[in-house]
Amino acid sequence: MLINRREIQIEWGDCDPFGIVFFPRYFEYFDACTNALFHRALGMKKAAMLKHFQIAGIPLVQVSCNFFVPSSFGDVVQVDSSVTNWGTSSFTVQHKLFRGEALAVEGIEKRVWTVRLTAEPTSAKGQAIPKEVIEKFS
Amino acid sequence: MLINRREIQIEWGDCDPFGIVFFPRYFEYFDACTNALFHRALGMKKAAMLKHFQIAGIPLVQVSCNFFVPSSFGDVVQVDSSVTNWGTSSFTVQHKLFRGEALAVEGIEKRVWTVRLTAEPTSAKGQAIPKEVIEKFS
Amino acid sequence: MLINRREIQIEWGDCDPFGIVFFPRYFEYFDACTNALFHRALGMKKAAMLKHFQIAGIPLVQVSCNFFVPSSFGDVVQVDSSVTNWGTSSFTVQHKLFRGEALAVEGIEKRVWTVRLTAEPTSAKGQAIPKEVIEKFS
Amino acid sequence: MLINRREIQIEWGDCDPFGIVFFPRYFEYFDACTNALFHRALGMKKAAMLKHFQIAGIPLVQVSCNFFVPSSFGDVVQVDSSVTNWGTSSFTVQHKLFRGEALAVEGIEKRVWTVRLTAEPTSAKGQAIPKEVIEKFS
Repeated sequence: MLINRREIQIEWGDCDPFGIVFFPRYFEYFDACTNALFHRALGMKKAAMLKHFQIAGIPLVQVSCNFFVPSSFGDVVQVDSSVTNWGTSSFTVQHKLFRGEALAVEGIEKRVWTVRLTAEPTSAKGQAIPKEVIEKFS
Repeated sequence: MLINRREIQIEWGDCDPFGIVFFPRYFEYFDACTNALFHRALGMKKAAMLKHFQIAGIPLVQVSCNFFVPSSFGDVVQVDSSVTNWGTSSFTVQHKLFRGEALAVEGIEKRVWTVRLTAEPTSAKGQAIPKEVIEKFS
Repeated sequence: MLINRREIQIEWGDCDPFGIVFFPRYFEYFDACTNALFHRALGMKKAAMLKHFQIAGIPLVQVSCNFFVPSSFGDVVQVDSSVTNWGTSSFTVQHKLFRGEALAVEGIEKRVWTVRLTAEPTSAKGQAIPKEVIEKFS
Repeated sequence: MLINRREIQIEWGDCDPFGIVFFPRYFEYFDACTNALFHRALGMKKAAMLKHFQIAGIPLVQVSCNFFVPSSFGDVVQVDSSVTNWGTSSFTVQHKLFRGEALAVEGIEKRVWTVRLTAEPTSAKGQAIPKEVIEKFS
């Protein structure tokens, strides 16, 4: 199973008046990590991926996250990302964010391989994930 | 049970190249909705609340979210927020985001009533939620 | 000259470890205020405006901003927005953000009425602003 | 004059429905670049810097920015940052963002070396920048 590791520097602007990462920022990190994982697996950037597979995107239908250890500006953290399950048109991405040795945050995204029938966002619907995509992650 | 309704206008800058709300923004909305709920229940703004109860904040330990219907810039959505469970030092906030009649997004936050022993974020720890706080939500 | 006033509640997540609004958030506020100004002048939301006038958007080419007084979470501020100059394809938007009586932040945006020759962002170019648009702001 | 170069990957979540970077994100990049520049010059992270010099921060009083070329998700850009002027308590930071060979965005920040008399944000005031700080940038 392909695991992509990404280093993230926590910025001043990511932190709240409490001095720790404002939690929605973790989901921004994770979204970037999912894109980086696909980039590595498929060997193409997201824009090229959308064109190549003629999809509109891989939007989320579900996400859950546990916060174990806070991080603060100046920290450098590592995120390990992998696809832990492939359905027909949906798939699950797991992100483990480490601060030093400690598992600090763990997020699980459920996303859908999505086409769009018209330009309208509401016309989006799932489509079978091509085998060649799944094979690239093993 | 106190339910606070908040109207949110989806902005251009909240949306991604897909044209729909970039999902971490929903967590920003929900965080603001939780603060608005506490403001309404306790009759004081967050800064006053932190001072009055001598806490450092109410950070999250867990969050989960389901995305049913996408929203786009120009949409006006409603979020109903309530505390659905009170533990000793933790509590659960539910947010239901409606786009028209449709339940579009549902988020569940688990937060902790938190004090800080020193200025260090890592010195944060949970403390019993005062009865007077809980009573204000019924 | 049409001036649109908008009330903005400063959120916890808009503030940095210093406890004040992280300055890029002001530009998010201003972008929303520009859209609200156009919405009010033209009587249509941004999505409808883009369709109606067959433009791709009104992106910025220049912005400047002065920060006089900091704001913090819980503050409610007012922003007065107006178009202070119309060129052939560009125009200038002024935003004055008030905290109580005090002018707290002042921003000046220079934007361009933009069409796109192809789907590529780099194919964007300015186009003459329709007279009917300009008239709606007086 | 010390110039710090930073590579930034433009993320999907940084872009708007137009498909290009939502302009407030550039200011987030620049803020991180200013912190990286100080980190490199002084050899300490922002948290350590605040403690060491007993300041509350280096907030902005003025910013201006020109946008020449749009960038989109998947792009990798370079930002060259330097302090171009030192006043008594204020200083000017210049950021040049390059997309390939092209100067795509140029930002100028005016910031103040700031102490705080009390915990209140409004008690902040400028203080003379230590000579040892300025010397580290030459």
